[in-house]
Amino acid sequence: MEEKITLNHGNGTKSSYELIRKIFLPKLSNPILEELSDGANIGEYVFSCDAFTVSPISFPSSDIGKLSVFGTVNDICVSAAIPLYLSLSIIVEEGFYKKDLEKIIDSISFAAKISKVKIVTGDFKVVERKKVDKIFIVTSGIGKRIKKANPSMKKIKVKDKIILTGPIAEHGTAILLARNKIFDTHIKSDCSSLRDILIPLWEKFPQIKFMRDPTRGGLASVLNEISLATILGIRIFEEKVPIKKDVESACEILGIDPYYIASEGQAIIIAERSIAKDILKFLRNSGYKEAEIIGEISSKIKGVVVKTLTGGERILDFSYSLTIPRIC
Amino acid sequence: MEEKITLNHGNGTKSSYELIRKIFLPKLSNPILEELSDGANIGEYVFSCDAFTVSPISFPSSDIGKLSVFGTVNDICVSAAIPLYLSLSIIVEEGFYKKDLEKIIDSISFAAKISKVKIVTGDFKVVERKKVDKIFIVTSGIGKRIKKANPSMKKIKVKDKIILTGPIAEHGTAILLARNKIFDTHIKSDCSSLRDILIPLWEKFPQIKFMRDPTRGGLASVLNEISLATILGIRIFEEKVPIKKDVESACEILGIDPYYIASEGQAIIIAERSIAKDILKFLRNSGYKEAEIIGEISSKIKGVVVKTLTGGERILDFSYSLTIPRIC
Repeated sequence: MEEKITLNHGNGTKSSYELIRKIFLPKLSNPILEELSDGANIGEYVFSCDAFTVSPISFPSSDIGKLSVFGTVNDICVSAAIPLYLSLSIIVEEGFYKKDLEKIIDSISFAAKISKVKIVTGDFKVVERKKVDKIFIVTSGIGKRIKKANPSMKKIKVKDKIILTGPIAEHGTAILLARNKIFDTHIKSDCSSLRDILIPLWEKFPQIKFMRDPTRGGLASVLNEISLATILGIRIFEEKVPIKKDVESACEILGIDPYYIASEGQAIIIAERSIAKDILKFLRNSGYKEAEIIGEISSKIKGVVVKTLTGGERILDFSYSLTIPRIC
Repeated sequence: MEEKITLNHGNGTKSSYELIRKIFLPKLSNPILEELSDGANIGEYVFSCDAFTVSPISFPSSDIGKLSVFGTVNDICVSAAIPLYLSLSIIVEEGFYKKDLEKIIDSISFAAKISKVKIVTGDFKVVERKKVDKIFIVTSGIGKRIKKANPSMKKIKVKDKIILTGPIAEHGTAILLARNKIFDTHIKSDCSSLRDILIPLWEKFPQIKFMRDPTRGGLASVLNEISLATILGIRIFEEKVPIKKDVESACEILGIDPYYIASEGQAIIIAERSIAKDILKFLRNSGYKEAEIIGEISSKIKGVVVKTLTGGERILDFSYSLTIPRIC
C-alpha cells in the first residue's frame, strides 16, 4: 500500500524526526541544514522559520498572531542570536472577517514590539472556503548572532546540567482545553517572548552549550532528540520538573503526559555543571522564579529516564505518535 | 454588515493593494516595510517571502515545489540581490502520499540547485484532512545586495523606458488550463529562475531604476502599482508586448485579458532611456530573445494606457477583482 503522511509526521514525535531525516535531509542536504538547530547559522546571522496552524486561533491569554511572532523570535533566541527582522506570510480563507484579521494583525504588531523585531516583508493569500482552516501564518526570522556564544549539540558532555526556565505544558494544555471545552479552568498559554531573558543570559553565560524551547512534543521530545544526537543518556528528576498544580490535574483528567505537552515561553538550557547554579540564580533573579536544574547528562543510562517522586524510574520514550495535532 | 475577506484581497488586484495599505502598513509600520518592494532591504541583505497555494499542485513543465523556490529567488533577484539562503515551511494534509511529497522535495532540491541557493531551515506541519487543500508551501529568502545597485520606485522619472524580458501570461494560462482541462494545448508555465539573467544584468547595469516580476495580477497590476506610487503615467505599445500566439488564443477562448495574467519567469525593468537599448541587447544576447522595450513613463497621461495595434488607446485599469485565485 502507498505510504501516507499522518498527523504524527508533523507532531514533533519520532515520526517527524524520522521523516525529516529520511526525506528532507538527503534531498536538500547541506551542512547548515544538517545541524537541524532551531535557527540556521548563516555567517553573522541566524535564520529560522515556523508555520502556525494552531486550532482554535484564539486561546486563553494569546492567539495565533502572538504565537507566530513569539515562536520564531524564541527559536532565534535559543540559537544565541538577537532577533531583528521577521517575514510574515498569511493564508486566510475567503469569508474570514476583516475585523478578526485586524485583531490578529494587532496581536502581531504587539508581539513584534515586545520582542523588538520589525516585520519587514510579507505575503497575503486568500483561498476558497474550506480549502484552509480559517488562517495559517508562517513567519521567518533573522537574528544577529551573539559573537562570543556558539552553542551546538556537539558540545554536550557527560555530567552537564539541564536547566528549565519554568513550568511545563501550559501552552498545550490551554489549547486542548480551549479546543474541547471539557471543563472550566484558569489555565493560560505561556506563549511569550524569551528575548528579554535569553539574550542577557547568553551575554552573561556565552559558554552555555545548547538551548531549545520545548514546543511541539514537549520536554520529552527535546530531551530524546538530544539523547539520540549525542548518543548520551539523560536523567531528570520528577521532583525538580516545574509544573503548575492545575496543569498537572488537567493533564491527568485529559489522560495526557505533561512531559510531551508544548510550552511556548520556556527554554531548556544545557551547560557545564560548574556554571549551572549561577545560571539558575540569574534566571530566578530575572523573574523566572520557578526555574530549576531538572537533570543531567549521563553515560550510565540509555535514552531519557525520569527518577520519580517515589524513587522509581520510568523511561520517557521518543514516542512515534501523539494524539494532539495543531498545538502551534 | 461585517466586512469579509474575499479572494480578490489576495489576488494582486487593487483590493489587495488597498488591504495591505489600510490594515497591514498602519499596524506593522516601519520604514522598511513601507517600501513594499519584493525584497526588504536590511543592511547588506535583502529579505523576502512568499506563500504558495497554487492549484493544481502540478502543471505543465513545473509544480508547487519549483514554483516555491523560483518565486522567492526571483523576488530577491529583482531586488538587486544575489539569492543565498531559503527557509522552507510546508503544511500538508493528513493522507497526502509520501511519494508525492518526495516528488515535491525533489523539485525543491532541483530548483534550489539551479538557483544556487541553500535551504537552511524549515518547518513541516500536518493538519487534518480537509483543513488544507493538499499542500501549501511558504519560502523566505535572504540575498546579498549588489552594492553598486540601489533600485527604488522613487527613482522613476518621465521618459524612462519599460523593458520586458519575454512573453507574458504563460504561467497563469497554463495553470488555468491545467485546472479546468477545457481543451488540449502545449502551453507551459514559464516558471523558472531569473538568477542567471538578472544578476549579470544588475552587475552590468547597476543604474537600472526598478525591477519587478509580473506574477499575481500580471503586467497590468505591476504597471498600475508603479503609476500609483510615482503619480506618473505609463504608456505601453501593444505591438511591442511579447505574447505567444497559443497563449493569446487560449486567453481569448477563456475570456481573460493576458495583461492581467501571471508570469513566473519574466521581469519588468525600468531604466533611463539612454541605456534601454543596451539592456535589450544584453537580454537578447543572453537568450531572452523575445525581450522588448514595451513602453515608457509619461507625464502626459494618467494611469496605464495601451496604444493598440489599430492605433487606438485603451486604459489598463487597476482592477478591483480578478476571477483567478491560486495562480501561485
